[in-house]
Amino acid sequence: MDMAQALVLEKKGELSLREIALPSELGPNDVRIAIHTVGICGSDVHYYTHGAIGPFVVREPMVLGHEASGTITEIGSNVRSLKVGDRVCMEPGIPDPQSRATLMGQYNVDPAVRFWATPPIHGCLTPSVVHPAAFTFKLPDNVSFAEGAMIEPLAVGVHASVKAAIKPGDICLVTGCGPIGIMTALAALASGAGQVFITDLAPAKLAIAGQYDGIRPINVRDEKPRDVVDATCGSDWGVDVVFEASGFAGAYDDALACVRPGGTIVFVGMPIQKVPFDIVAAQAKEIRMETVFRYANVYDRAIRLISAGKIDLKPLVSETFPFDQGIAAFERAAEARPSDVKLQIVL
Amino acid sequence: MDMAQALVLEKKGELSLREIALPSELGPNDVRIAIHTVGICGSDVHYYTHGAIGPFVVREPMVLGHEASGTITEIGSNVRSLKVGDRVCMEPGIPDPQSRATLMGQYNVDPAVRFWATPPIHGCLTPSVVHPAAFTFKLPDNVSFAEGAMIEPLAVGVHASVKAAIKPGDICLVTGCGPIGIMTALAALASGAGQVFITDLAPAKLAIAGQYDGIRPINVRDEKPRDVVDATCGSDWGVDVVFEASGFAGAYDDALACVRPGGTIVFVGMPIQKVPFDIVAAQAKEIRMETVFRYANVYDRAIRLISAGKIDLKPLVSETFPFDQGIAAFERAAEARPSDVKLQIVL
Amino acid sequence: MDMAQALVLEKKGELSLREIALPSELGPNDVRIAIHTVGICGSDVHYYTHGAIGPFVVREPMVLGHEASGTITEIGSNVRSLKVGDRVCMEPGIPDPQSRATLMGQYNVDPAVRFWATPPIHGCLTPSVVHPAAFTFKLPDNVSFAEGAMIEPLAVGVHASVKAAIKPGDICLVTGCGPIGIMTALAALASGAGQVFITDLAPAKLAIAGQYDGIRPINVRDEKPRDVVDATCGSDWGVDVVFEASGFAGAYDDALACVRPGGTIVFVGMPIQKVPFDIVAAQAKEIRMETVFRYANVYDRAIRLISAGKIDLKPLVSETFPFDQGIAAFERAAEARPSDVKLQIVL
Amino acid sequence: MDMAQALVLEKKGELSLREIALPSELGPNDVRIAIHTVGICGSDVHYYTHGAIGPFVVREPMVLGHEASGTITEIGSNVRSLKVGDRVCMEPGIPDPQSRATLMGQYNVDPAVRFWATPPIHGCLTPSVVHPAAFTFKLPDNVSFAEGAMIEPLAVGVHASVKAAIKPGDICLVTGCGPIGIMTALAALASGAGQVFITDLAPAKLAIAGQYDGIRPINVRDEKPRDVVDATCGSDWGVDVVFEASGFAGAYDDALACVRPGGTIVFVGMPIQKVPFDIVAAQAKEIRMETVFRYANVYDRAIRLISAGKIDLKPLVSETFPFDQGIAAFERAAEARPSDVKLQIVL
Repeated sequence: MDMAQALVLEKKGELSLREIALPSELGPNDVRIAIHTVGICGSDVHYYTHGAIGPFVVREPMVLGHEASGTITEIGSNVRSLKVGDRVCMEPGIPDPQSRATLMGQYNVDPAVRFWATPPIHGCLTPSVVHPAAFTFKLPDNVSFAEGAMIEPLAVGVHASVKAAIKPGDICLVTGCGPIGIMTALAALASGAGQVFITDLAPAKLAIAGQYDGIRPINVRDEKPRDVVDATCGSDWGVDVVFEASGFAGAYDDALACVRPGGTIVFVGMPIQKVPFDIVAAQAKEIRMETVFRYANVYDRAIRLISAGKIDLKPLVSETFPFDQGIAAFERAAEARPSDVKLQIVL
Repeated sequence: MDMAQALVLEKKGELSLREIALPSELGPNDVRIAIHTVGICGSDVHYYTHGAIGPFVVREPMVLGHEASGTITEIGSNVRSLKVGDRVCMEPGIPDPQSRATLMGQYNVDPAVRFWATPPIHGCLTPSVVHPAAFTFKLPDNVSFAEGAMIEPLAVGVHASVKAAIKPGDICLVTGCGPIGIMTALAALASGAGQVFITDLAPAKLAIAGQYDGIRPINVRDEKPRDVVDATCGSDWGVDVVFEASGFAGAYDDALACVRPGGTIVFVGMPIQKVPFDIVAAQAKEIRMETVFRYANVYDRAIRLISAGKIDLKPLVSETFPFDQGIAAFERAAEARPSDVKLQIVL
Repeated sequence: MDMAQALVLEKKGELSLREIALPSELGPNDVRIAIHTVGICGSDVHYYTHGAIGPFVVREPMVLGHEASGTITEIGSNVRSLKVGDRVCMEPGIPDPQSRATLMGQYNVDPAVRFWATPPIHGCLTPSVVHPAAFTFKLPDNVSFAEGAMIEPLAVGVHASVKAAIKPGDICLVTGCGPIGIMTALAALASGAGQVFITDLAPAKLAIAGQYDGIRPINVRDEKPRDVVDATCGSDWGVDVVFEASGFAGAYDDALACVRPGGTIVFVGMPIQKVPFDIVAAQAKEIRMETVFRYANVYDRAIRLISAGKIDLKPLVSETFPFDQGIAAFERAAEARPSDVKLQIVL
Repeated sequence: MDMAQALVLEKKGELSLREIALPSELGPNDVRIAIHTVGICGSDVHYYTHGAIGPFVVREPMVLGHEASGTITEIGSNVRSLKVGDRVCMEPGIPDPQSRATLMGQYNVDPAVRFWATPPIHGCLTPSVVHPAAFTFKLPDNVSFAEGAMIEPLAVGVHASVKAAIKPGDICLVTGCGPIGIMTALAALASGAGQVFITDLAPAKLAIAGQYDGIRPINVRDEKPRDVVDATCGSDWGVDVVFEASGFAGAYDDALACVRPGGTIVFVGMPIQKVPFDIVAAQAKEIRMETVFRYANVYDRAIRLISAGKIDLKPLVSETFPFDQGIAAFERAAEARPSDVKLQIVL
């Protein structure tokens, strides 16, 4: 443990930028990374404003941040895949390498996973971190630090597309146009979708999504999603895949109404309570439903899609803050402006 | 159309055994079958007692029955796969052969499907029916007419196992010990499950299921399913597959509590209204959820499992009625005795 | 049957443009189509130059052509999905709608399938054809007749991508840069591949493929595919998917050398004899291998990918011939110029 | 390292029972096991008789044996899942826990895997071994040490069934009736197969397989597999899954001839050289082909199938030898008597 400057959530509603003792020992399979950019996630903000997410309660001061990119400054003795100077981004959840879930390839649902900025694990809003090489990914030259720090939320969308098993030319619907909804829509398009509809109530959000070729925004105040889908898919059919990314109860009915017989719904959004769900409607179309919990084995895929020009995240960076204005960045994030997609802090 | 004796639901609550005009023309791809045995399904009873199931309303007199076996008496000019005298059972739903769903192999969700004893289509409680050869299946010598008439409900369980993609040695839980729950449990065992738990409130039902090797009944009045599962699977793991076969709201929470990280829930039971469903609990374990609507491409599989001795349905025939006591059979079925699994009518 | 002008393969090596009696009766589920454009496929040329492909021998004069687009001129009494004037393309293989393979969604492997220009079935190089509506697909306004007539070969590539189950960001290798190889590469990119390598010996072919973003040509005279792959994937890993599209014996070793542990090889190319195959090399990486036989359920997908701008086939039309020069078109095709990808005939 | 008695392959053709220095340090995630029973595998015998298997060459004296059961005598400080006195069996291959393959759930194809009795890694024919707890599995009371020591070869068959994705009621064909062929047949039946054909030339081997309900032996000297399959499956169809478990060139043609359109072939047997393979025959039926390399994530499944009574391995133990006659056991194994399935050594 060494003392280091960090953006610390002291307790619900109270942030400081101060020194705190953080782990600093470099194991043989680890790398040390100088952090460059950290994005602010809704979960960071939620810990700030509510002090907890479900069973995860902030009981001790905790460093925030888990969407990060940086540069390697030191490597452990066994590390062969990375070298000092590599520009990288980091997967923030580290599982028990010998757990049953990990050995099955589902390390994201290992109950023992340790995840940045999920109590009691510190996050990465600090100038230097130590991380396992296996969860650290080299950025190609044409992927910026800002993009590197968005691989984490994009990975959720890519993982959702993998779970959906999108087939080329699929028509998709995303319900909810927040940062995860937009990234899910972009991931679906990059995964072979031929067209993606996206719904929301906020015109500012829909306008951002609508900038992209292949995304058709639907403001649910003005149009019924099923009516829009009908025009493309026919009234007795529907979209191949729905990604529910809003968590709003009404969206689950839209999902069931819009999906085709034999189609798929992926639950990405996390509703704050149980949702009244029409099981029989799902059965009548024999729908498959997948859920996602973070992601596994998709970081390299997400990086490649950006590097290949298949996903352009640059329009999604709404504003960048220097590290010493990190608290101001969080205050801005807590405002939840509809036109803000992603705020980032540069160290 | 010809006049034939049949068990007719005149309207809600009123049955008669009388002559009615029924289709009798044999097309080139059809066979004519002398009906031998017809099982009574919960849906038949529900049309009798309620006059409707969801959007399907009995508006004209309708012949009941869709779980049938019999003997071929005539074949169409193109039929090569079957011959006069073959003992057979019949898949009761006929799709549009050129629909999009059919061409994709999901003919059960073809919106145009015509299904016996689903208004306005007549069922098969009549001495002779015409049916497409492609949906008529030869019974091996060691499969009785009584078993043949249970292929239909068994097919639901087999289809659920196919959808679950059971792996050898899977541990499964079935919630609900009605006829479909028991047949789903038997199908799961025959599909490779190493052990199957089954829950219910009714001791008589659980006792019937508990006769079978490999099925462990759980009376939810006495034991919490999660506690029973813990002893076998460990408290941080769970069953590989849950088949929800009750339609009761509480069972959905049991399903989520008992399934392992990365596991699967198959929704077989049809709740009468929306169910409060814990999406986040499903996400935290990244559960896959499948639904079943009847079945497709499993009749031959179900027959083979019986013929191979992998599923024994004989203990499930609770009582057999002659055709002229068909109305009494329906009255008995409407009593819903816990010890009755399957009532059959022999013509 | 009516007499109609057609491009007829009289026997091996002999073509005529003449009148021939062709089926013309419109059934209730059929449409009549005025043919606009027909592409020449390698199989058409092979029947012309060899008189047979494997077990399919030309014994009677046969109309050639199966890659077609056109305009609907008449519809059968049951047809609702299409109307007179619709611009369309046609899937050339019609299965038995009630066969076991068709009901399983694999109608392409139905032994009873009837396929245009596969003896003894006539093809579509004639001004008007009758075809089932279920196998006729409307072209969006932004998809030309030339593109519509290339949906057929593109469908092979799309089907191969579906079989591969490409995941977003996959790295792929296509061995063989003929028309099918190029279309498979384009389909893989549109299906989510992050990068596609393609191999061949002919610089002219590789140059055409190399025009496309995301495709990296490898001339196997100059570079070893495994060496090129190493630079991207690391020497102990490899590409996620190989599409073997050459049918050359040596390519099978390249495929095994280049694929990653746990990867997939799809066999698209049809070698003229048995191939010496290294089973143990496939096992050591636990490779999955898929084969494709034509395609099923992908025409709408292929059309959508073109309409969405995800695949650009226009650079692949090497030359267009009027119908009265159809024989010259076949003679040119028989030359097999490396710079010719697709020759088309416009009626 | 400590000196311990062991059965040592000194070099090709030379075995001794002597003291040798073996690793003995117990890490925090390890257990120490008193070995009870070790089965002799074909690979052990092959190292003895040939000194190498493919690229794996015996250059130093190496302890043989990798099919083992025993009793835990000591546990590492982190181990919670096992305790002293537990009867166990051990998975013999240990991957790098942070490799790409391992994180994807395919640890068996991790190039860094260390596998018992694969040069230069020592095997387990010694009284005590240290092994990671994550690869050590508790045996239920009703599973004997002899059965426990057969989990390893059975795991190959179970893994092959998982790869095949057997559906309930599938008809299967196994080509080759050696120990792996028989165990694959038993695993397929336990995984839901309705019937399994198995081929060989040796009547003694077929007689052993034929003892089991559901297995139909075919002596390829007397019967053509395709003819036998025809009688069950129809001449235009075939078996759902073929497991090639012989490695003989002719079996690959049988596999292709017998599998149904849309079916699956799993390559389990390891031919000693390249096999002439009919790619076009595979394409004409659009066959999926899977390969297996050892197994992953199936030990618990295999144990459960035995414990549940779904697989009976007891008839397969041909003879048991005490440890001090271990060399004699190997000499007997090298005779390759057709009536010997599995020879075991008890310590």
